[in-house]
Amino acid sequence: MWRDYIRQVKPYTPGEQPKDENVIKLNTNENPYPPCVGVRDAIKDFDYNMLRKYPDPAVNELRQAIADYHDVDIRNVFVGVGSDDVLAMCYMTFFNSNKPILFPDITYSFYDVWAEEFDVLYVTKPLDENFRIVPSDYKTINGGIIIPNPNAPTGIEEGIDTIIDIIENNKDSIVIIDEAYVDFGAESVLPLVAKYDNLIVVRTFSKSRSLAGSRIGYAIASKEIIKALHNVKYSYNSYTMDSLTIKIGVEAIKDDKYFKENLEKVISTREWTYNKLLELGFEVFESKANFLFAKPNFISAKELFHELKKKNIFVRYFDKPRINEYLRISIGTDQEMKELIDAITLLK
Amino acid sequence: MWRDYIRQVKPYTPGEQPKDENVIKLNTNENPYPPCVGVRDAIKDFDYNMLRKYPDPAVNELRQAIADYHDVDIRNVFVGVGSDDVLAMCYMTFFNSNKPILFPDITYSFYDVWAEEFDVLYVTKPLDENFRIVPSDYKTINGGIIIPNPNAPTGIEEGIDTIIDIIENNKDSIVIIDEAYVDFGAESVLPLVAKYDNLIVVRTFSKSRSLAGSRIGYAIASKEIIKALHNVKYSYNSYTMDSLTIKIGVEAIKDDKYFKENLEKVISTREWTYNKLLELGFEVFESKANFLFAKPNFISAKELFHELKKKNIFVRYFDKPRINEYLRISIGTDQEMKELIDAITLLK
Repeated sequence: MWRDYIRQVKPYTPGEQPKDENVIKLNTNENPYPPCVGVRDAIKDFDYNMLRKYPDPAVNELRQAIADYHDVDIRNVFVGVGSDDVLAMCYMTFFNSNKPILFPDITYSFYDVWAEEFDVLYVTKPLDENFRIVPSDYKTINGGIIIPNPNAPTGIEEGIDTIIDIIENNKDSIVIIDEAYVDFGAESVLPLVAKYDNLIVVRTFSKSRSLAGSRIGYAIASKEIIKALHNVKYSYNSYTMDSLTIKIGVEAIKDDKYFKENLEKVISTREWTYNKLLELGFEVFESKANFLFAKPNFISAKELFHELKKKNIFVRYFDKPRINEYLRISIGTDQEMKELIDAITLLK
Repeated sequence: MWRDYIRQVKPYTPGEQPKDENVIKLNTNENPYPPCVGVRDAIKDFDYNMLRKYPDPAVNELRQAIADYHDVDIRNVFVGVGSDDVLAMCYMTFFNSNKPILFPDITYSFYDVWAEEFDVLYVTKPLDENFRIVPSDYKTINGGIIIPNPNAPTGIEEGIDTIIDIIENNKDSIVIIDEAYVDFGAESVLPLVAKYDNLIVVRTFSKSRSLAGSRIGYAIASKEIIKALHNVKYSYNSYTMDSLTIKIGVEAIKDDKYFKENLEKVISTREWTYNKLLELGFEVFESKANFLFAKPNFISAKELFHELKKKNIFVRYFDKPRINEYLRISIGTDQEMKELIDAITLLK
């Protein structure tokens, strides 16, 4: 019977997307500022008649713009429908051994979801009591490694030496560094791609380029790796990125001035919020991402989550072992963060 | 070594996308007319600041518009990034038995590519000498059935009785009817979804709604099937369709008047071209799609393909057994088809 063969999956619950415009939405790590004006103009100037034709399956225009930005060859660039698409393609393409892949126990909640979806064995490696990676955990036989840096949902950056140590000890494995949040102040391992042909660096336009709604992610890696990704991608869906999104992506990566101003604003607001939360008695981790991971001391995290929601302030709560006393708070505008701090102050 | 575990895939080659604007492009079944003006206005009126937020992962606005159009419940609708995405999700979700799935030997060239990609056993069933499906071929144990109607690349429609016969004999299997081309004059099996909970009807906006560049496809099926598809989809990539494309899709399905006028034009041009090709001595199949499948009698198909390309007219040639004496010719504007017929006449 067909019902017996339906794939059973571990469900993933994305952060809530409330329709109410009056909500202060600090629950999905969206950027509070608009995309660059080049994006606005690309949309305004787009000839809608172009949509009757298929997009370029190789997405060359956007891949070239990304290659130019990072000063690599276009053959070092793979583009996907969000970094989730890029990472899922990496799982399908590279995680086919019978050895388990490794990733931290506290991390982006999709890593184990993909492992289940694609029948990939995995072992999680516990972060230490300060939520830091223990590099020696990754010196064991494995079918691949995936590490986000900065980590989610903690925002903690591991130094480049830690990452190099892990790569140096895993030259027989694919090592993926998920740099979704790297632009907000962390150091990238992108320059190492020239040295290690087993390293994949994954990025997204969703956070630092204010384009969560456009679904653009990419990977930078050796030409051999990118070619393997393209082979699998073309066998799955030749045309995934639509023509208009390609134009949007090109404009978004070209405006470096706006990009850097935007990052500076988010970082400055993050540091202000960090200090205010400390003043309010929270335990807060130093973050290199566009969110803070914080533990209140006068109320449980779950309770605070619900209290804030009543005031139309949405933050993220994970009801999971080890992190169920923390909230992940995305960085909004100065005004939004002030309202958050005021709301928390009133609850004390 | 990581190289030993790279997934090996059967490569798929999409039709050429020449950059030259002067090309008469009849090789990828694109619609020669623009999308409806609602699409133009949706793009023009789009607030680019919306892109900083994630899209609705459930794509409810577009799913509701599709549900309204087909007079079904929103829970009967699944939306994907092109029908390729929808079909790939169907493979992942439902083709997990150890029995082979069945499809015709001459058909959409992606069916076996997905089977290879997802390690699904498959058996192809030869069409008869007139390229028609032999229904008794599908009365055997199987892990699922996928049939395009009208078929590609022949354009031939199987009567609804043939499809019902196949479904009636396969109540234990998932039966997918791929109706990518149905709008161009064929009869849909959509009304049968209410009766058969194992039937999935797949559609696309790429051809009949002139939106190949936007990547919108969908499936209509029982609520149980759609729920299973959503579970797998959310475990793969929660946000696949971008916010702007959702708006475009909603407008495209609402303008039924333009849609029907567009179809009538394409069908009328198809019939004119069909008769001209017959006059020129081609063997041509009656088509219910936006292309014709035709065999020249004065030159080999391969040679004609190359001769037309020299004149900047692109058609599709498949160098495959049984069909390597045919060309698949997409229906362009009247003017484009006249130029094609003139070019062929000069070659005779």
